Amino acid sequence: MTSNNRVAPHLFVVLGATGDLMRRKLLPALFHLAAQGLLKEASLILGAARKTDLGDVGFRAQAREALAAAGFSADDLAGHWCDECLFYQPIGLGEAEGYQALAARIAELEQAHHLPGNRVFYLALPPAALASTIVGLGEAGLNRSTGWSRLVVEKPFGRDLVSAQDLNRLLHRYFDESQIYRIDHYLGKETVQNLLVFRFANALFESVWNRDRVKRVQITVAEEVGTGGRAGYYDGVGVIRDMVQNHLTQLLMLAAMEVPTGFDAEAIRGEKVKVLRQIEPIRPEDVVLGQYTAGQIDHREVPGYRDEPGVAPGSTTETFAALRLQVENWRWQGVPFYLCTGKRLPRRLTQIEVAFRCPPVSVFRPFFRCEIDSNVLVITLQPDEGFDLCFEVKAPGEPFSLQTHRLHFRYSEAFGRLPDAYETLLLDLLTGDQTLFVHADEVEAAWRLYTPLLEHRPSVHPYAAGTWGPLAAEHFLGDMGGSWRVVTRAGKEADGR
Amino acid sequence: MTSNNRVAPHLFVVLGATGDLMRRKLLPALFHLAAQGLLKEASLILGAARKTDLGDVGFRAQAREALAAAGFSADDLAGHWCDECLFYQPIGLGEAEGYQALAARIAELEQAHHLPGNRVFYLALPPAALASTIVGLGEAGLNRSTGWSRLVVEKPFGRDLVSAQDLNRLLHRYFDESQIYRIDHYLGKETVQNLLVFRFANALFESVWNRDRVKRVQITVAEEVGTGGRAGYYDGVGVIRDMVQNHLTQLLMLAAMEVPTGFDAEAIRGEKVKVLRQIEPIRPEDVVLGQYTAGQIDHREVPGYRDEPGVAPGSTTETFAALRLQVENWRWQGVPFYLCTGKRLPRRLTQIEVAFRCPPVSVFRPFFRCEIDSNVLVITLQPDEGFDLCFEVKAPGEPFSLQTHRLHFRYSEAFGRLPDAYETLLLDLLTGDQTLFVHADEVEAAWRLYTPLLEHRPSVHPYAAGTWGPLAAEHFLGDMGGSWRVVTRAGKEADGR
Repeated sequence: MTSNNRVAPHLFVVLGATGDLMRRKLLPALFHLAAQGLLKEASLILGAARKTDLGDVGFRAQAREALAAAGFSADDLAGHWCDECLFYQPIGLGEAEGYQALAARIAELEQAHHLPGNRVFYLALPPAALASTIVGLGEAGLNRSTGWSRLVVEKPFGRDLVSAQDLNRLLHRYFDESQIYRIDHYLGKETVQNLLVFRFANALFESVWNRDRVKRVQITVAEEVGTGGRAGYYDGVGVIRDMVQNHLTQLLMLAAMEVPTGFDAEAIRGEKVKVLRQIEPIRPEDVVLGQYTAGQIDHREVPGYRDEPGVAPGSTTETFAALRLQVENWRWQGVPFYLCTGKRLPRRLTQIEVAFRCPPVSVFRPFFRCEIDSNVLVITLQPDEGFDLCFEVKAPGEPFSLQTHRLHFRYSEAFGRLPDAYETLLLDLLTGDQTLFVHADEVEAAWRLYTPLLEHRPSVHPYAAGTWGPLAAEHFLGDMGGSWRVVTRAGKEADGR
Repeated sequence: MTSNNRVAPHLFVVLGATGDLMRRKLLPALFHLAAQGLLKEASLILGAARKTDLGDVGFRAQAREALAAAGFSADDLAGHWCDECLFYQPIGLGEAEGYQALAARIAELEQAHHLPGNRVFYLALPPAALASTIVGLGEAGLNRSTGWSRLVVEKPFGRDLVSAQDLNRLLHRYFDESQIYRIDHYLGKETVQNLLVFRFANALFESVWNRDRVKRVQITVAEEVGTGGRAGYYDGVGVIRDMVQNHLTQLLMLAAMEVPTGFDAEAIRGEKVKVLRQIEPIRPEDVVLGQYTAGQIDHREVPGYRDEPGVAPGSTTETFAALRLQVENWRWQGVPFYLCTGKRLPRRLTQIEVAFRCPPVSVFRPFFRCEIDSNVLVITLQPDEGFDLCFEVKAPGEPFSLQTHRLHFRYSEAFGRLPDAYETLLLDLLTGDQTLFVHADEVEAAWRLYTPLLEHRPSVHPYAAGTWGPLAAEHFLGDMGGSWRVVTRAGKEADGR
């Protein structure tokens, strides 16, 4: 985010380089950054994986296919880039010799291309492979170099407080926190970054961003998809671990944090973690969990969660969660923060809604019977990124009536295509800006909040796929003014535009 | 505005019924109200003027032409309405017998059509004819009836404090203030009415509508036209009397007033006049006046003010004024209110801009050099009615930079065609709602404010037609942050949409 600095020559090592993440996200992002001239020419990529028979040539051929699949025409530029910049090194899982060989290959490439020893190690690996890889890199001395060495870790960052602490302890055995980039791709979205700018560059909103003016805040991440092909991983994990602990909690922190002393990683991440530490323990009545049954989405029949291949019979894994959190500080005391997310909901939608208090009295009564809705600021992160401010307007003509309309702004109208979240985050990584990456303290504070809930999980209500979750959630969210309905209404308008 | 009541049967008497106002505004508005079914069938119109030879038939023929010119096809409905509802009575200027004859004709029509004695007297007359007509009506006993009698007065309401007091005294000799409807058609515009709704139905904005959050307010009425055919009237009157004392001051009162106890005429007009009484006397350094010279508008050469036919040679009548007013109360102390209006400016534009204070510190420095503009709420009354809220957005991608964009809302997008201001006001008149009409106290308080300025008028700066006024005004308005430029920029965007 602060990357006005130029990217220094470096070697970008991807562990798990034949996997899905590399093919779908990292390669296209790295190529597009290079094609825009944002990387130095001396940016080499070394893929490492267990396929011993691949070789540089085979790896480059895979990469060409991946770029074509990502929409880059396999023209001279992409092909040239693959041939010039991509290298491959086989590595056995958990074998010390493999990491020694990797270290030797790195040294060889750096010497051949006159690189100063700046290195990224991107762990594009399943959770089970994480610990042995960290140990392997560390024991091979790849945690230090003559330049900088940065380690990128993908979520999940553990599955509860103890496992997260274990993982952090292992990471810190070899790497300083300043070397560790925990990536949550939600933080790379332009709208998330802009949330900070929105708050701290617009005094109008910041001046009402508190308990005196705000009635409630709701953070919603609705997904249309089910578990995809991931049911085997997902079952026993559930939406609290998969979505709430990371994505939704990150958005909560950004929405609720105090003004930082500056716009640097330390100041911002320090304020974020303060929010988590000020959240009251979650009581059973603050949570509604759900699991989808068979239903319809977009006139298409979809199976229930328990019928997905890979899900245990009678599984009680939650696919929906609505939570009410209380941030007990001077700014937010008494303002409920609702987090709401689920799979197989009617539409894909990520929003932060800030509902302001209603006028203390209606000057329109007794002359006109009219309900005054509260003003609501809706920050949409997807699918149509932008801001809406719901406000009350007199409908023209007679009789007197109020209608809720929207002041609206859409990024796409103002700017066209937005940068991909991975491009943003990779560029920050390469310039050493940790602002949009997750600190160990944040991870542990988040698990500290949710682990008791996971250990004493309330019962799971069924909901039909294609609905907005269990009825219990509707009551739960609706009791503060039907904001859940606002979400759905807002989305409908956005769709129709 | 509160006209949920139904319109009672009545006789609508227009004095000056062969004039421009009747033809262009009143007839189309009355017909359109009737055609929408908003008037009772027993709504008759009696035109009165000096043309003795016109007769009902001739008057109806004129009316048909006027409706056709106003875009109503001269179909059965309009023709039928003219034949059924329009009548004509000749009346000599200042002749007592004329008013006796008018009274007799009114009584005859009311008897024939079983009307209960509800009467409107609409004075569609030049200022010189006003006094004798009021006396004529009053002396003929037309100030009272068995129903209600309402008198409508068009601006100007005097030309200084003394003449305004004289006019009010004369009005009050025959009519109660509750019978008098002083019309300022700006107040009938949907956006002006909505300004009150906007303020008192939207707690978000009302909570920042004060000196703690607002840096400055600017009210702009820019006209592209010159004096039109009215130079003979305009010369010696000038823009302070013609625009500032009424239209701009009305907008100022609505923008600055306290929350009324209710939404009725008495409560709202009481709060409006309080604003005027709290404005500090205007000092010479708070005013810049101007007069246009020859120039270009829309690539078309236009003459200077002194070259318009009917303007005295060497006239110093002002065609441009920029003023800075201080509302000395708890809400607004220290917040300058700028009023700015002129003829022959580049574009037609009526706006209220509320500029909020900038963030107290920039958290973005020293990391990014970026200017933070203040948030500005722009309420556009014409040509494209709506709201814009200027806010700061991070431009996507690198390097970090802020841009000012707009949350926007346009009435036309939400509602299509808006009601004509005259229709709104006539309907309010007919239901007895004085909220959007000007009280005697408002008129006198406004003249009390501007009369000293008119008596000691500062020198008038020349400005070329087609520019935004004299250079002195640009400095004068610009010293609080270039808001004049914001106006013009806002307008350009609106044009382009």
